[in-house]
Amino acid sequence: MGEKEVVRRLLDGIRSSAPVGPGDDAAAVDMGNYYLVVTTDLISVRTHMPEVMTDRQIGWMLAAVNYSDIAAMGAKPIGMVVSLALPRETAFSSLKSMMNGMQDCSESVGAEILGGDTKESPEMTLAGTALGTVKKDRILLRKGAKPGDYLAVTGTLGLAAAGYYALVKGLHCPSGVKALLEPRPRVKEGLILSSSGAVTSCMDISDGLGSSVYQLSEMSGVSFSIEWDSVPIGKEVLRVASDCGMDPAELALYYGGDYQLLFTTAPDKLPKLRSRMRSRMTIIGKAKRSDRNTLKRDGRVVTLENRGYEHFR
Amino acid sequence: MGEKEVVRRLLDGIRSSAPVGPGDDAAAVDMGNYYLVVTTDLISVRTHMPEVMTDRQIGWMLAAVNYSDIAAMGAKPIGMVVSLALPRETAFSSLKSMMNGMQDCSESVGAEILGGDTKESPEMTLAGTALGTVKKDRILLRKGAKPGDYLAVTGTLGLAAAGYYALVKGLHCPSGVKALLEPRPRVKEGLILSSSGAVTSCMDISDGLGSSVYQLSEMSGVSFSIEWDSVPIGKEVLRVASDCGMDPAELALYYGGDYQLLFTTAPDKLPKLRSRMRSRMTIIGKAKRSDRNTLKRDGRVVTLENRGYEHFR
Repeated sequence: MGEKEVVRRLLDGIRSSAPVGPGDDAAAVDMGNYYLVVTTDLISVRTHMPEVMTDRQIGWMLAAVNYSDIAAMGAKPIGMVVSLALPRETAFSSLKSMMNGMQDCSESVGAEILGGDTKESPEMTLAGTALGTVKKDRILLRKGAKPGDYLAVTGTLGLAAAGYYALVKGLHCPSGVKALLEPRPRVKEGLILSSSGAVTSCMDISDGLGSSVYQLSEMSGVSFSIEWDSVPIGKEVLRVASDCGMDPAELALYYGGDYQLLFTTAPDKLPKLRSRMRSRMTIIGKAKRSDRNTLKRDGRVVTLENRGYEHFR
Repeated sequence: MGEKEVVRRLLDGIRSSAPVGPGDDAAAVDMGNYYLVVTTDLISVRTHMPEVMTDRQIGWMLAAVNYSDIAAMGAKPIGMVVSLALPRETAFSSLKSMMNGMQDCSESVGAEILGGDTKESPEMTLAGTALGTVKKDRILLRKGAKPGDYLAVTGTLGLAAAGYYALVKGLHCPSGVKALLEPRPRVKEGLILSSSGAVTSCMDISDGLGSSVYQLSEMSGVSFSIEWDSVPIGKEVLRVASDCGMDPAELALYYGGDYQLLFTTAPDKLPKLRSRMRSRMTIIGKAKRSDRNTLKRDGRVVTLENRGYEHFR
């Protein structure tokens, strides 16, 4: 059973009055004038983190994955709390560096560390919970895309994957390594998308575009056609793919770790959205009434693969 | 370094605008008319949980420890999110039972499970984050006790300890075992204490009375004198202590797990508080200007021991 399926099945059985259902990036609590957005994410350091990561980067990552979920809802982050399960031999200096990383990431999105707890444990496991607020009519959800909507992403794709393969193969790609180990949560972009009123659905691409498109598709009840030629891919990604003898699509569509936002907009709202987002967005496809998500590449239309980085498989 | 010291030193370095400092049961975020209270707590199942616990009890416990912190702030719980690090071989039925336990505990305090996340990990680690709200002038903090204030507790002490020793020694004490494995967060009591306006400081007694009195003492800058004869101890606790050849003070003062609330009240407000709390509170001592916390027992005044259940020691 995949990780997402476990979460879905677990939360399906929960009787909840929360206005945003399980399966979205974060939960939303109705606070009267606005939603309080809450998300939690956990890192098992030995299992999930590359050995090359510094303590500061581990802390940054824990914060970044949580704020990315807040960003995907179009919310303004307040801050986060952390629960740390620590082996007895953990050095205080390591802990301090992790905390600094969390704090730096928090400050980069205008938020702060609100509090924390530590426990002893044989394995180092770090859990973070981030909070944010968003006006009720401005929340961004995974559901809402309509046939005819444009599908778009912030930034470029595949840079974190390029960083990973550069590390593995000993290639030079510092921007990729930074994207992989210190991802920037797209909070600013999420706030612009939210305030524009032009976005019909949104999520973050933590597990890769392929996997994310399927989730947006399932939650919105539409399918998407992606144009390979429109997918924004940096030169470094093409170079690393070429040096590794890999198809760049593997890095840009099926690896993940970029923490960009994937979103849809109605055609009549596109000019308004473009004027606000400017170079921060790229249209990569369209929503349609269909039963499959497709990728058009070199004149051929194939089924987009539903895979990405996921645990429990 | 003790667990509390680790948390204190880590959070001391954090630049935070939160109105409630590290060292309290939960963080508080200023939301205009009220405080959003946030707390996080984590359980490493193999390390922290007795083997006799059922999956449902493990889930209940995770929720209870979090809601207990919300209760200690006098806040009304909204709900919680959970992050679960799970070994690959975890059965779905176990997970489901844990989730049911969390949900039952949430419902018992008028709250709900808001969302969650799972990751694979060699060790089962469960992290919960609970949220609540409290009017700004009604928040209960660990600081605020003044010399002359009465020190009081909700409920009785030592029952969870009696449950523990009953399990270990094979004695019959079902109420103790239930107190140990399915502690009830004192949310209702916390709300009464908060709304009374009569409480000058408050915290929960998760680690035992001895340890908690020292924390309240340090945060409030007063000392406490405890009267042993006033400490509320159930018959079962006295019986188990006697059957085990143990001093009942060991169970009632230094074991913990009761998740009762420890609080102070000004003498002139006591009648009002009593009329609201009725049998739910017992005065066990007084705050004073002094440099040591004392226990008066059998006519002798001794220093109260600063110990309780704590990790990292």
